[in-house]
Amino acid sequence: MVGPLEDLIRVLKRFPGVGEKTATRYAFHMLNASGDEVQDLIRAIKDVKDKLRLCSKCFHLTDKETCDICSDQRRDSDKICVVETPLDLMAVEKAAHFRGMYHVLHGVLSPLDAIRPNDIRVSELLERVEKDRVTEVILALNPTVEGEATASYIRDRLVDRDVAVTRIAYGIPVGGSLEYTDPLTLARSLDNRKKL
Amino acid sequence: MVGPLEDLIRVLKRFPGVGEKTATRYAFHMLNASGDEVQDLIRAIKDVKDKLRLCSKCFHLTDKETCDICSDQRRDSDKICVVETPLDLMAVEKAAHFRGMYHVLHGVLSPLDAIRPNDIRVSELLERVEKDRVTEVILALNPTVEGEATASYIRDRLVDRDVAVTRIAYGIPVGGSLEYTDPLTLARSLDNRKKL
Repeated sequence: MVGPLEDLIRVLKRFPGVGEKTATRYAFHMLNASGDEVQDLIRAIKDVKDKLRLCSKCFHLTDKETCDICSDQRRDSDKICVVETPLDLMAVEKAAHFRGMYHVLHGVLSPLDAIRPNDIRVSELLERVEKDRVTEVILALNPTVEGEATASYIRDRLVDRDVAVTRIAYGIPVGGSLEYTDPLTLARSLDNRKKL
Repeated sequence: MVGPLEDLIRVLKRFPGVGEKTATRYAFHMLNASGDEVQDLIRAIKDVKDKLRLCSKCFHLTDKETCDICSDQRRDSDKICVVETPLDLMAVEKAAHFRGMYHVLHGVLSPLDAIRPNDIRVSELLERVEKDRVTEVILALNPTVEGEATASYIRDRLVDRDVAVTRIAYGIPVGGSLEYTDPLTLARSLDNRKKL
């Protein structure tokens, strides 16, 4: 095959879920794209690497000192939704239902992987709760062992402060069917039943 | 969302088969990749755009004046396999069964799209047949109306020259099943039956 093309395919295969065929399609797409389009792509990649950093307050990705969410005066600064990753934050934000602040931990506690409280942004969260008169901390962590452990840890650290610690509900997804819901989720959704 | 990230996702969505979710995954992959890896990617993209051109003989992609296949003295220069695109050439080459030369047309005849003989590399093929003492032209075009029309055109142009014009066989794919083969392919494979 042809050197530069082979080379690009090799690099593209490092992307998640991309194999030989997809990489080849992408490489040919770039080969046939206009010079402007390729310049656009290269600039966008560089910008993401050079301009993005973490918000000094909530640790979400931003190209400013504090992110757009933290700077938005119309949002409730007394509620903090705690998530594991910027992607999780973006998922919650997409629901367009929560109008408070966020805090991105950048990880969850995992003794097996030697990820301890100091390795994630948990002390910064505790500081914010102290300083910003936060009334509620909503834990929106994934329902995994590590997520649960992290939720417990944060709850324990906040138990003697004047702040409500809540967790998003586990249950049957909207549009889902009972038949295909796993037993654990069903058990949780029974436990968490609400009066009508 | 965050400017530079949004921007990269927008650009990545132009890739074939890439939607919002896949573009987001790729963008985060680049964000989390090492600086070296990203430099690698940018260099590979630039090289494909800057260094690749068409082989002066067969019009395959190459970073030299003539491609590796045309320069390979061990290959039979009297057989030319005619394909529509460089991807088709690479597919034939991957079968590792053909040891002759290639000719990439860069298109097929299509009156509806106003693609006429002068728009594809067909006159260059006829010249090569004349000049290089070619004994066989193997047409490896896709079994479409346009592919058939192009095959007929080339055969007609070569009919009074001393060269065999053949076409790759249509039939049941190896590993395929009769049950799931479309009627047209089955009809062709019956027509082209071989004595055992």
